Amino acid sequence: MPKIADKYLAVDPWKVVEEGFDAGRNRVSESIFSLGNEYMGVRGYPEEGYRGDTLLGSYFNGLFEESKVGAQYKGIIQSLRFMVNAVDWLYTRIMADGETFDMAVSAFSDFRRELDFRSGIYKRELVWHLTNGKRLKLTFERFVSMRISNLGCQRITFEPLNFSGTIRVIAGLDFAVLHEDQGRMYWEAVRRGEQNGNTAMLGRTVQTKNRLFSGFRLEATDVVEDAAATGATDCDGRFIGRELLLSLKQGQRTVMDKLTVNLAEKDVSRSDEEIWNDGLELALRCADLDYDAAAAQQREYWTQVWKTSDIVIDGDPENQQGIRFCIFQLYQTYHGDNPGFNIGAKGLTGEAYRGLAFWDTESYCLPFYIFNNPKAARSLLEFRYRSLPHAVERAKELDCEGAFYPIATIDGTESCDLWQHSNLQLHVGTAVAYGIRHYVSITGDTSFLYEKGAEMLIQICRFYAARGQYGQKTGEFGYFGVMGPDEFQLMVNNNCYINWMAKKLFEYTLEVIGAMREADFGTFAALAERLALTEDEQADWREKADRMKIPQEQETGIYEEHDGFFDMPHLDIHSIPVAEFPLYAHWSYDRLYRYDMIKQPDVLMFMFLYSSEFTRAAKRANYDYYEPRCIHESSLSPSIHSILAAEIGRPEEAYKFFEFATRLDLDNYNRNTREGLHTTSIAAAWMNIVYGFGGMRSDGEKLVFHPSIPDHWERYSFQVFYQGTRLMVEVNQEHAILRVADGPDVEILIYGRDYLVAAAGVKVGLEQAKAGEPG
Amino acid sequence: MPKIADKYLAVDPWKVVEEGFDAGRNRVSESIFSLGNEYMGVRGYPEEGYRGDTLLGSYFNGLFEESKVGAQYKGIIQSLRFMVNAVDWLYTRIMADGETFDMAVSAFSDFRRELDFRSGIYKRELVWHLTNGKRLKLTFERFVSMRISNLGCQRITFEPLNFSGTIRVIAGLDFAVLHEDQGRMYWEAVRRGEQNGNTAMLGRTVQTKNRLFSGFRLEATDVVEDAAATGATDCDGRFIGRELLLSLKQGQRTVMDKLTVNLAEKDVSRSDEEIWNDGLELALRCADLDYDAAAAQQREYWTQVWKTSDIVIDGDPENQQGIRFCIFQLYQTYHGDNPGFNIGAKGLTGEAYRGLAFWDTESYCLPFYIFNNPKAARSLLEFRYRSLPHAVERAKELDCEGAFYPIATIDGTESCDLWQHSNLQLHVGTAVAYGIRHYVSITGDTSFLYEKGAEMLIQICRFYAARGQYGQKTGEFGYFGVMGPDEFQLMVNNNCYINWMAKKLFEYTLEVIGAMREADFGTFAALAERLALTEDEQADWREKADRMKIPQEQETGIYEEHDGFFDMPHLDIHSIPVAEFPLYAHWSYDRLYRYDMIKQPDVLMFMFLYSSEFTRAAKRANYDYYEPRCIHESSLSPSIHSILAAEIGRPEEAYKFFEFATRLDLDNYNRNTREGLHTTSIAAAWMNIVYGFGGMRSDGEKLVFHPSIPDHWERYSFQVFYQGTRLMVEVNQEHAILRVADGPDVEILIYGRDYLVAAAGVKVGLEQAKAGEPG
Repeated sequence: MPKIADKYLAVDPWKVVEEGFDAGRNRVSESIFSLGNEYMGVRGYPEEGYRGDTLLGSYFNGLFEESKVGAQYKGIIQSLRFMVNAVDWLYTRIMADGETFDMAVSAFSDFRRELDFRSGIYKRELVWHLTNGKRLKLTFERFVSMRISNLGCQRITFEPLNFSGTIRVIAGLDFAVLHEDQGRMYWEAVRRGEQNGNTAMLGRTVQTKNRLFSGFRLEATDVVEDAAATGATDCDGRFIGRELLLSLKQGQRTVMDKLTVNLAEKDVSRSDEEIWNDGLELALRCADLDYDAAAAQQREYWTQVWKTSDIVIDGDPENQQGIRFCIFQLYQTYHGDNPGFNIGAKGLTGEAYRGLAFWDTESYCLPFYIFNNPKAARSLLEFRYRSLPHAVERAKELDCEGAFYPIATIDGTESCDLWQHSNLQLHVGTAVAYGIRHYVSITGDTSFLYEKGAEMLIQICRFYAARGQYGQKTGEFGYFGVMGPDEFQLMVNNNCYINWMAKKLFEYTLEVIGAMREADFGTFAALAERLALTEDEQADWREKADRMKIPQEQETGIYEEHDGFFDMPHLDIHSIPVAEFPLYAHWSYDRLYRYDMIKQPDVLMFMFLYSSEFTRAAKRANYDYYEPRCIHESSLSPSIHSILAAEIGRPEEAYKFFEFATRLDLDNYNRNTREGLHTTSIAAAWMNIVYGFGGMRSDGEKLVFHPSIPDHWERYSFQVFYQGTRLMVEVNQEHAILRVADGPDVEILIYGRDYLVAAAGVKVGLEQAKAGEPG
Repeated sequence: MPKIADKYLAVDPWKVVEEGFDAGRNRVSESIFSLGNEYMGVRGYPEEGYRGDTLLGSYFNGLFEESKVGAQYKGIIQSLRFMVNAVDWLYTRIMADGETFDMAVSAFSDFRRELDFRSGIYKRELVWHLTNGKRLKLTFERFVSMRISNLGCQRITFEPLNFSGTIRVIAGLDFAVLHEDQGRMYWEAVRRGEQNGNTAMLGRTVQTKNRLFSGFRLEATDVVEDAAATGATDCDGRFIGRELLLSLKQGQRTVMDKLTVNLAEKDVSRSDEEIWNDGLELALRCADLDYDAAAAQQREYWTQVWKTSDIVIDGDPENQQGIRFCIFQLYQTYHGDNPGFNIGAKGLTGEAYRGLAFWDTESYCLPFYIFNNPKAARSLLEFRYRSLPHAVERAKELDCEGAFYPIATIDGTESCDLWQHSNLQLHVGTAVAYGIRHYVSITGDTSFLYEKGAEMLIQICRFYAARGQYGQKTGEFGYFGVMGPDEFQLMVNNNCYINWMAKKLFEYTLEVIGAMREADFGTFAALAERLALTEDEQADWREKADRMKIPQEQETGIYEEHDGFFDMPHLDIHSIPVAEFPLYAHWSYDRLYRYDMIKQPDVLMFMFLYSSEFTRAAKRANYDYYEPRCIHESSLSPSIHSILAAEIGRPEEAYKFFEFATRLDLDNYNRNTREGLHTTSIAAAWMNIVYGFGGMRSDGEKLVFHPSIPDHWERYSFQVFYQGTRLMVEVNQEHAILRVADGPDVEILIYGRDYLVAAAGVKVGLEQAKAGEPG
């Protein structure tokens, strides 16, 4: 499946820059220039009104609407929840001499926009050519505050180049926003008005009654008139704003700042009055802050981020820009300030995937946070703890016990209306369990483990104990009627990934129970009583773990992805015409499922997750079998292959699979960036460098590194938090240097040898795994 | 799964009789008292208006509406078609002294209704007690003509018991009918008016633009006034009718007859004007016919039916009534007068299953028609020939070649919105092929075979050649990612039924091609050219047939339902609490699919269809394995088990599985007769007697009988058409007597011995297969 870059944006180490406007690419750019602060996100749409192709998207984390779906059978969901497009708090209209500026119809020049990773500010500038010959330079800036997550800031600068005169500007809040994916508007205006210098509205969603307060104040120079604005005629009171008459002078800049406070509320028990007052109070608390002060805070925040999370790549400007874009987007989407949030597949940048969180969170994103921002990692796991009651409910719906985590969710409930995924894919639960294990092992945070993790683990085990069955013929335990992460094998028995992960789940949980009983008997006893955990139950888990079927061909060591996989008809995936990709769009749905073709790694995935349990030879044998059968119709897929290729001594393959990881969206490789960024997928780019080239493994007793470097890179460096220490890893063509940047010394393994790394650092010559060597 | 009779109706050899009205059971009775003539059907609803629980259902064969469904992937249907509830042509209102008669609110007594299988007339009578003490006897009669399929006849008789005076009656056509299943009305009035003594309307469906002309004339005695009636206020012109003022005399009967002509038109190219005129012309042609003359024709028609299709059971009045009800309903639903029609799962008696035809047609119903009404059997197969272009189109949608027949259809297109059924169930095509083979073999109609059958066979083969694959490990041919008739194994590889049937399909088609080339080279050559049939293609089919995987355990002879079935976790189906049936309603959807539990016979089904290819011992071994695993959540299931139990010498089991077959609806065994009759299922009752007790097998060279008789029956008899001869089979506790009732002598096998049967008949002593004997 060839991927081809759509090279368009300028390469810059710290910015995304677009010079000149390409209307046909506007939606792609809107995605790339998205801003977010975990609490809210806005696409890079032209806020002044644009009649061209645009997705005017403004989203709030966890704020959702729902539509009914026709569930025909028990256990299939009845309502589809989605992150709903919300208030356009950037709403602006600019009018001069009877014309209204609109990039789709107005003449303009000198268009340039940029997003600066160091300031977090998106800036767009252009010169408007009025039909009467006047030229007005417009500069639009915006950011969403990383310090005060309710705060969105907008600045528009007007500079008349060849005239002096007045213009009119409308600034407002528009709740009459189309949710494009459903073709409907979902907001009703509950309350609106001017109060304490704020122009505000409280909106409410039609079905779910989620509410959103939005209020702004304007600061502008050269104001001649300031009056209430009327919005579009057909807005049902869903618009409120102000209209300013500004008097501009040639060659001088007139600035209008709009600071908006947004407050989302999902608790239906709270009154409109309460939320309205909370919103106004919040606005009051921000009243002293002006645009410049907020922007300074913003820059300060990002400086801190880059200090601990930057990856430097010397000798490869494109990947340098790419990886920083990935890190920037990950922080924008999530940084753990607001417990109860999760990470949608497209973050806060579009409507595709409906804002839902998948196992991507634990399998792609969590490692990034564990090693860069452990607090955020814990917060992500807290989301699963908070939604444990929903998972318990869901397990009951499926006639099982314990907790079954949803395959796709915005609020903890299942929101995938394809039963084959929501009912057959069991791998979110084990991903959560693996995430707990991973987080605790790297951070040493046993308090989280004992307070919350253990309860989740026990409930997840109960589900896996209930859902599994013993084969009638083999007497082995396993899972029947399931789909693994490889979604091209839709309904199978004994998926090797699921079986393996369940086995490890049982074992780890029993280990945690043992350790907890030892370390903190009181807490353990209380938990065991509350959950009615019995010895018999634990014995049952032990037996199920021991008797778990892990299908493997003895002669070759190749794991069979599921019962019967080796007999699946073979397809030479390279014989598929390029025009048929993506296969989901071009092949009959059922046809996808009857070959030995896989969509993404399944066996290789668990061999990566539990790397320390497999020899290099075993990895090589399975890689050689599965890699030629994998079409990578998931963006996680190339990363795992790259990481394993590096490990088994195939640097060229490793680089080939890495190639488009950091620039997936910047170069629009999948041709669907217009729908939003591949937010969770780009976390894989980070894994690719740290686990792939860095050769880090984090599943064993100690942290492990097998550093390598692509041929054409001069040097790269990254940092990881490990047991409270910040460890700096720097690799050039000859050496790897590992040193402690902050915190106590740590014991790690480099190329299989023990090192105690301190601030002074350790310098090791690079070693390359040989393709032919024994494992 | 215990089934319990809901004994309610009186037992009568030739009628269904309900004495006294049970409002809580009204919908069940409406289904049972349904009338149909293949062209149209009406449920037994109270036509005078009823505010109680009713499903006012009036249906026309093949007339459909559609609703869009959100298809997400290629090959999944985008619009759901369904038989739409249509004009209430029986609409009546009866008013006296300010009261309107309504069984839900009016006082009445002496309620009785009956449906007579010999006349085809449904009659309901009661005495209305007005609040002022007046008593008016009302008798409602109706039938849909079997001679003139457009004609519906209604007679209402008014007999005042204790007064003389006037009443008002409205008789009309109401297109404002709710399609309950979708909660919508689907008809618009296109044209309405009084013309040539007819009160008429042309209606049109909203989406599909199907049109329906309906026009009636009234004949009544004692009419004082006759005026246009106004309908309900909110009917958007969708009602038209007349209001009569009748002058009644105590003790005398006043009669109002309403003869309605209905004309359904799906061809969108025809103008409203044309259809309107056609309708009027049709009405004109019926103008000479009065109610009594039409009723006489009706009785005559049914007399003919019973002459050739009756089954007599002496010594078991309940089954006698039951089997006649089944035969009556089968003829009502379909008798082959109108090519292009098929048989919906509920016939024309309700909205459940949306009026769609399934493989039921070929696998349940076709044998009844082959042996009772070969013209109708051919007509059913013609439906598949007419819809061959749709099947070719559907195969393409599924990235295959040839023809793929829909799992559920009203017009030849696929209309099942559950992809797992519509895309994975391949057994309609082989059922059609088997039906062709069966029909041709029994009737000798090679002209149909060569003109139409061969083309279907070739196109079906092409699909099965394209859809199948060779196993990578075994090198055997088979089908991956399929669901067999047993819908409790949802997506499997090498389903034994599908593989077996495909093998036989290839072999039979090649045989037909050979015979046709021999017998009629010109026709063959033209067909081969038109279809571009090559020798290579035929060689490919031969190879696929030869290499077809038929999984079987060698030691026991038990066929494995699909790859891995023997390892599916075992479930003792008798351990399932009764309250959990039907499992579809009580179990999580995915849970149904992970046991060795089967919904209906799959292996046993092909062993029945190709009975002559399996020894009795093989049938016994497979019966003993699969029967305890089958929960019979399909009504075909018990019949096949009954038939096989009789064959392997288990008469008690045979009777146990037969027990509720003839009275499935009369005694409401499945508790869902309220939704409509199990029209296609009740065809299995016929098979149960003829194939089961009669021991007929019709898949071999000659027709075979192994007669037996349940212990408590004195005698039973049935007739079958075979090679143009009408053969009478009569069985008592000692003997079976087979004789030719009409036509030339025939060679058949009785208990494995050859007989030439003539009009004089052959008398053979009953033989019983022993449970323990070798096969």
